[in-house]
Amino acid sequence: MIDPRVASGLRDLPPSVMIPRERMLTEFRKTFSLFGYLPIETPHIERMEVLTGKGAGSEEVLRQIFDVTNKGGTPGELALRFDLTVPLARFVAKHVNELGIPFKRYAIGSVFRGERPAKGRFREFLQCDFDIVGTEGVVADAETAQVIHDALSAAGVPDFTITLNHRKILDALMDGFGLADRTGSVLRALDKLAKVGRDKVVAELVASAGLSDDQAARLLDFVESGRGGVDVLDAAEAVVGGHPGGSLGIARLRQIMQLLETAGVAPERLAIDLGLARGLDYYTGVVFETTVKGWERFGSVASGGRYDNLASLFTDRKLPGVGASIGLDRLLALLEEAGWLKGVSAPVQVLVANFPGVDPATSIQLASRLRRTGVGAEVFPEPLQIGKQMGYGSSRGHRLAVIVGPDELAAGVFNLRNLATRQERKAIPQASLEAEVAQTLQSLEEGGSA
Amino acid sequence: MIDPRVASGLRDLPPSVMIPRERMLTEFRKTFSLFGYLPIETPHIERMEVLTGKGAGSEEVLRQIFDVTNKGGTPGELALRFDLTVPLARFVAKHVNELGIPFKRYAIGSVFRGERPAKGRFREFLQCDFDIVGTEGVVADAETAQVIHDALSAAGVPDFTITLNHRKILDALMDGFGLADRTGSVLRALDKLAKVGRDKVVAELVASAGLSDDQAARLLDFVESGRGGVDVLDAAEAVVGGHPGGSLGIARLRQIMQLLETAGVAPERLAIDLGLARGLDYYTGVVFETTVKGWERFGSVASGGRYDNLASLFTDRKLPGVGASIGLDRLLALLEEAGWLKGVSAPVQVLVANFPGVDPATSIQLASRLRRTGVGAEVFPEPLQIGKQMGYGSSRGHRLAVIVGPDELAAGVFNLRNLATRQERKAIPQASLEAEVAQTLQSLEEGGSA
Repeated sequence: MIDPRVASGLRDLPPSVMIPRERMLTEFRKTFSLFGYLPIETPHIERMEVLTGKGAGSEEVLRQIFDVTNKGGTPGELALRFDLTVPLARFVAKHVNELGIPFKRYAIGSVFRGERPAKGRFREFLQCDFDIVGTEGVVADAETAQVIHDALSAAGVPDFTITLNHRKILDALMDGFGLADRTGSVLRALDKLAKVGRDKVVAELVASAGLSDDQAARLLDFVESGRGGVDVLDAAEAVVGGHPGGSLGIARLRQIMQLLETAGVAPERLAIDLGLARGLDYYTGVVFETTVKGWERFGSVASGGRYDNLASLFTDRKLPGVGASIGLDRLLALLEEAGWLKGVSAPVQVLVANFPGVDPATSIQLASRLRRTGVGAEVFPEPLQIGKQMGYGSSRGHRLAVIVGPDELAAGVFNLRNLATRQERKAIPQASLEAEVAQTLQSLEEGGSA
Repeated sequence: MIDPRVASGLRDLPPSVMIPRERMLTEFRKTFSLFGYLPIETPHIERMEVLTGKGAGSEEVLRQIFDVTNKGGTPGELALRFDLTVPLARFVAKHVNELGIPFKRYAIGSVFRGERPAKGRFREFLQCDFDIVGTEGVVADAETAQVIHDALSAAGVPDFTITLNHRKILDALMDGFGLADRTGSVLRALDKLAKVGRDKVVAELVASAGLSDDQAARLLDFVESGRGGVDVLDAAEAVVGGHPGGSLGIARLRQIMQLLETAGVAPERLAIDLGLARGLDYYTGVVFETTVKGWERFGSVASGGRYDNLASLFTDRKLPGVGASIGLDRLLALLEEAGWLKGVSAPVQVLVANFPGVDPATSIQLASRLRRTGVGAEVFPEPLQIGKQMGYGSSRGHRLAVIVGPDELAAGVFNLRNLATRQERKAIPQASLEAEVAQTLQSLEEGGSA
């Protein structure tokens, strides 16, 4: 006998997880489509050199790559993708001439990383990415935040904050210090601010990034006063407004915030954080992170930003763009812990009994009629004791059972049982099945939401 | 520069393929759900012993397995799944106590086989499976065909035939010959009937399966007269009706055909073929194949059957069931070649221009208003020449463009351009945007379908 366990770090997703996940994905697809993003799919398996090309993934990610080899194949040639961005870059480089630009795509798919297994960390997880490639327009920057906003709203997240920054603003400050090449170390140090506190970050900035004590203090003042609404940009302007990059970054953020307001995104859903580091080596313009209010400890559930050149590994053509990725699994875990997944039931409302000794033809016919009106209906597959069938229905979350025993069959009627209250209305004419079921479901719905 | 090609036997799916594919999957999910099948997902990576256990896959499939290894991992421990049935068996064995039976699930996901690349054969392809596990009921047999019927109808396939057989009928004939253990060889020979003709099959039956000339001829007569409507079962009954298995198989097929008629499946959509071999070593009861009328050369687009014991590799518990798999990629290729994918356009109907020199705020606002009414709207991301923006819209399949230039901005109006005819209605008040666009799209729709 073989042990039916999954491999370490992997998992099965049962219906209780998949039903809300599918609903959320349906909302995401709908949102992406409403904005004109088109679906694409790339293989789970890529050629190794595509994934390991310079800058494709961080060293950490590259250490986590899964090799793939078929019998007779050469080891080291193929691997499982670790994100959807490198495949997008390859896809765009390959197909840009047919597709034209701007090219707006979304992609939803599993990615694989051989991380050390830990709670909440999986070696296979789903990414939901959307990007506009081939444009530097500010409209695309604002739209990226708007899509995050609309997608999370559609998914039923009650309150969240999209935090924005622009990479050129901190660059300008560092340039003013004569330390433009140290931005990477500075961002790495700043990333720890919430965790280790100001004093330790100052120490690291001095030790690792080569700032003077005074510079480190000014930088932290700049970052710490750089959190809030669009007005924090006034103070930043006084510091780096004279620098071309700083001025550009500030103007761009102002414009994005204004366009988002126009688009109907409530100002309290947006925040600026001039210390937001997102995407160290990759993003070059605006960057985004999204946290759910009261659940910030889950980290960002939707992140992204603007890049200068997506596909430089694969083509000479310069392809700037902007996009983001929604962390579906993290979001689901959060919604579940917050109790916001309530009301998610089985996809089928009605169980049609398979009465012992009665030809199941009538049950099949009644169920088919309900489905034609869009009401999910399941015929119990075996003529077990009716009590067992009702127990199945209650435990799966069916709300109603339609029962036709020998007497009902002869009289052309059915009984309708409420599986929660166990109340049963008897001898309803079969001809009025659809109307009776629709009406009963509706009154349950109203009762349930009252 | 790295070549952006995909590995041999793999492929990118551009929007022109993905849009109809997503639509079809949405219809399939809806159909499965209406019947009470619940979604599950298992990892793409399984432990090797799960996939290679006795009987899990044919020798051919096992030769095509992709090994998976992460850095520091041991080669030979993990592999990519080659179907969704073995993972279902493992899943059910692992979770049957929480889930209870009957358990109805559907699963949609990529599977991997290192086949020799050839036209139309890919090393990664999508399977869409649905099964009821834990029941021997005839209702589940009939429902499987009904789900195939409803799913293909919902996907827009105009005419198709679901062919049924029961494995015990041919077994009974072979048992009558005293050759019950040769059924496998017989089915393999029969499988070639359409391709090589009767004489060669007779020769193979004699040479490989050990039938006498007379037995081979009687077997072929039986099979060749065993194709048609439910009435072909009368002739079969005369031959094998005295055999307990034969009698059971014939009665079961009759009952399934009758239940399907009750469920509203048109009789001309169903056929019986007593030579249908499907699932040599696996199925034990009813089997199904589905071909599209006039496109039989594409082979079966939806196949399945009943099995006695799904998860015997992983558990002592006997779990009979029935299910099928829809060949989505094959079906899409067929629909495309048949020209039945026409009318599939970009997911967005409206392009909102980004007029040079005009603040894009109004465009973003108008697009947001349209989306709130469920009409997809895309704002062109950069203020390029209007002619270029219109060219983008025409080539992507947008139907209408909303244009606000400086004069329109000042007057609070917009122009509405039909991208196909290039006709433009000028100076429509912005307040009536939603109504005007909805009405214009509807008249285009009516014009288009006339």
